[in-house]
Amino acid sequence: MTNATPRESLWVVSVQTAFPNMANPLGTLFGGHVMQLMDVGASIAAQRFCRQPVVTASTEPIDFRNPIHVGEIIELKCRVAWTGRTSMIVRCEVHGENPLTGERRLCTIGHLNFVAIGPDGRPTPVPALSVSTEMERHHWETGARVREDSERRRDRKVDEPTAGN
Amino acid sequence: MTNATPRESLWVVSVQTAFPNMANPLGTLFGGHVMQLMDVGASIAAQRFCRQPVVTASTEPIDFRNPIHVGEIIELKCRVAWTGRTSMIVRCEVHGENPLTGERRLCTIGHLNFVAIGPDGRPTPVPALSVSTEMERHHWETGARVREDSERRRDRKVDEPTAGN
Amino acid sequence: MTNATPRESLWVVSVQTAFPNMANPLGTLFGGHVMQLMDVGASIAAQRFCRQPVVTASTEPIDFRNPIHVGEIIELKCRVAWTGRTSMIVRCEVHGENPLTGERRLCTIGHLNFVAIGPDGRPTPVPALSVSTEMERHHWETGARVREDSERRRDRKVDEPTAGN
Amino acid sequence: MTNATPRESLWVVSVQTAFPNMANPLGTLFGGHVMQLMDVGASIAAQRFCRQPVVTASTEPIDFRNPIHVGEIIELKCRVAWTGRTSMIVRCEVHGENPLTGERRLCTIGHLNFVAIGPDGRPTPVPALSVSTEMERHHWETGARVREDSERRRDRKVDEPTAGN
Amino acid sequence: MTNATPRESLWVVSVQTAFPNMANPLGTLFGGHVMQLMDVGASIAAQRFCRQPVVTASTEPIDFRNPIHVGEIIELKCRVAWTGRTSMIVRCEVHGENPLTGERRLCTIGHLNFVAIGPDGRPTPVPALSVSTEMERHHWETGARVREDSERRRDRKVDEPTAGN
Amino acid sequence: MTNATPRESLWVVSVQTAFPNMANPLGTLFGGHVMQLMDVGASIAAQRFCRQPVVTASTEPIDFRNPIHVGEIIELKCRVAWTGRTSMIVRCEVHGENPLTGERRLCTIGHLNFVAIGPDGRPTPVPALSVSTEMERHHWETGARVREDSERRRDRKVDEPTAGN
Repeated sequence: MTNATPRESLWVVSVQTAFPNMANPLGTLFGGHVMQLMDVGASIAAQRFCRQPVVTASTEPIDFRNPIHVGEIIELKCRVAWTGRTSMIVRCEVHGENPLTGERRLCTIGHLNFVAIGPDGRPTPVPALSVSTEMERHHWETGARVREDSERRRDRKVDEPTAGN
Repeated sequence: MTNATPRESLWVVSVQTAFPNMANPLGTLFGGHVMQLMDVGASIAAQRFCRQPVVTASTEPIDFRNPIHVGEIIELKCRVAWTGRTSMIVRCEVHGENPLTGERRLCTIGHLNFVAIGPDGRPTPVPALSVSTEMERHHWETGARVREDSERRRDRKVDEPTAGN
Repeated sequence: MTNATPRESLWVVSVQTAFPNMANPLGTLFGGHVMQLMDVGASIAAQRFCRQPVVTASTEPIDFRNPIHVGEIIELKCRVAWTGRTSMIVRCEVHGENPLTGERRLCTIGHLNFVAIGPDGRPTPVPALSVSTEMERHHWETGARVREDSERRRDRKVDEPTAGN
Repeated sequence: MTNATPRESLWVVSVQTAFPNMANPLGTLFGGHVMQLMDVGASIAAQRFCRQPVVTASTEPIDFRNPIHVGEIIELKCRVAWTGRTSMIVRCEVHGENPLTGERRLCTIGHLNFVAIGPDGRPTPVPALSVSTEMERHHWETGARVREDSERRRDRKVDEPTAGN
Repeated sequence: MTNATPRESLWVVSVQTAFPNMANPLGTLFGGHVMQLMDVGASIAAQRFCRQPVVTASTEPIDFRNPIHVGEIIELKCRVAWTGRTSMIVRCEVHGENPLTGERRLCTIGHLNFVAIGPDGRPTPVPALSVSTEMERHHWETGARVREDSERRRDRKVDEPTAGN
Repeated sequence: MTNATPRESLWVVSVQTAFPNMANPLGTLFGGHVMQLMDVGASIAAQRFCRQPVVTASTEPIDFRNPIHVGEIIELKCRVAWTGRTSMIVRCEVHGENPLTGERRLCTIGHLNFVAIGPDGRPTPVPALSVSTEMERHHWETGARVREDSERRRDRKVDEPTAGN
């Protein structure tokens, strides 16, 4: 670790109105648009944590639990949940909110994995994450489990693109 | 007022990365893009406060104090600062943040004026704003001054579009 | 002034169709989109007038008088209304037009303030504006009043971003 | 013709700044973006002429003579050049303009063919075009030649999509 | 299964040029943009397979192996790899291609999980997938493993959004 | 020709869903958007054929035969149909596809003309096109006819932009 003192990761919040140009023809927010919002917000959380350039290394499973409708408020919250030597797993919580009633529905909780990049263009160490509150411990444990799944994937024979295409 | 009990307005926060497609050819965030972000964030603050549909009635003066560069983090914070019978003045603070150093610069503080719209398509009362902390009082006073300027504009002979065009 | 001979500012006109991706969920043109169009058109008027790079220094109050609906024609007209030593106040008139009837409604008249930037990155003088027709005199007077409001704002204790955020 | 009195077609002008998101990786305005601007401006010229809904029936040949660079002003001018019973040929002239020198280069002159659509969803008559000035006669003759090429295409055995795909 | 005869899933191919507005400030294609392309292409593969409306149920892990640079060709290939009763797992292969040399790099292989939606708005059966070639068997096995991971996630105590936010 | 051995041109395929932000207010795909898609796909076909930078020299006539509706699949197929010394004529076939029934309609067949650009910024030779199958011969003949029309245009007195504008 480059930093002796573990560093906190604060929530990064971002809101949007679900405009018609983000929706599929059914009037619900297009999944690809949600993923794009998550990538932007999560990369800001990672950058604020390590203060280095970061790249998206992987997207961990994203289960879409409820749709968000045109006209609703999209609220995205991200913070670094787990850190390794050069990588950070960022937790993203996305809610849809009915602007007239305030009713909120969880759209998804997802994790993105970022790597910090040094001046030589290669992975570079990140600070250790401070983990003291119950929330921080819960996020760390979930992040660690995500990390294990990710490593298990790497141990498997890596899948190759389909030949002859 | 429809509500006997004044209601609080919490900060609505939103972050973005300044991507190249939001920048002018000089590499700094295009003013029109900042205004668009402010309008979206401020309308969410107004909707969360009154829980009614809102429309932008006016944009109060926006002084651009410092530029935001491509690659920086844009942070927008909005809350309702002042309320009248059917209108809400929302305060927006926009900062640029260097993602590598964390250095933050104030880009602008601006106010947008929203009106709540009832089922009949006409202005409808909004709750009274709770004003108790020093910050809330400061925001209210600034908002009230913005309101006075806005009313002074209305008292002037309204400017008409140029004839013969 | 750099130019002994005052220079004219001609109207810069721009049209658009209000497509669904520029509209809020109510089907009316999103205020932030109107502001973005105004910023682009006004900066072209300012560049054509001074033939130097320009930056948006401030947006003066914009009162939205009538909505523009999806499918309508948006017409934007801009010209430099007032000039100082290094700054130009551009007047923008935005109309919505029903394409089938030709009926036109004034959406807004707004002013944007631009500063010319020299090779050293600092404000640089602009030509004097030629003011001879009645329309030019009317625009100049309105622009001068806008300028006074803007200077009155600067004389007030400048508002600071909210601490502790 | 539905209208006894021929109707004039005035120029429809539209300006834009060439932002980086409209450019190909070489820094010049992407051809597809120019075509999209032409289609929007030309449809407005056609709608203002016939005051009916219109659809793009065809795009006549567009020769790109000079590139437009990021940071330049794009100026589009369109007017109806020729009218048939239900169709209108719109002439579009696109220039690039260096904002600092005012130097202008012709990017392209192109023609788009629109058809007016009646309440029954089928082509409906348009007014006759007034042709009296030398410019109007020149545009009409060019438009008529465009029309002949278009009819010659229709007389040829229409090309079919490639089978087995 | 609704169909007695298993149905084939053909490759759906889509190409794009990596334009500057899809890139992060480092000049490489933004991860969120790749995810958005995958979601669009995969949903087309799923719709062509089941000929019913589909919604994205989840995104399985996406490992970004190599970056795609501005100016390169993005090639996306998708086909349904595995089917359950109402769900389809779509395999996406994304390559970057240097347009001048033809050199191709695998950007990512990812899987998205779609559910077919019946007229009552609830999941509805999809046809069985025909699996006979070696490629089809390989894709099915990978898809089945993805499915198991997905079910293992569901068996775990589902993660809840962070309280108090 | 730079290459002794003629080179094949394979189909380049690209699919999209017609989202609401690509549609005109009538709910059908905006003609300018179709042209933009064709320009992107065709330039990829040309680049893959000659492996050199290319620029759009002209768009040959595009007849829009059938509309594409929001929610439908847009399928674009392009291949080089004809080659000259430094130019390539690319054939584009665009279909709309109803995702629920699979019904396909030809939207348009169009040709774009590209020129390869050498390191000196000037047109540079391209490989000869291999023409052996019946499809290739049909495409070549159609492309040659397009070329003749294009040369006939060049022989005519070139049209000039309207003076005094």
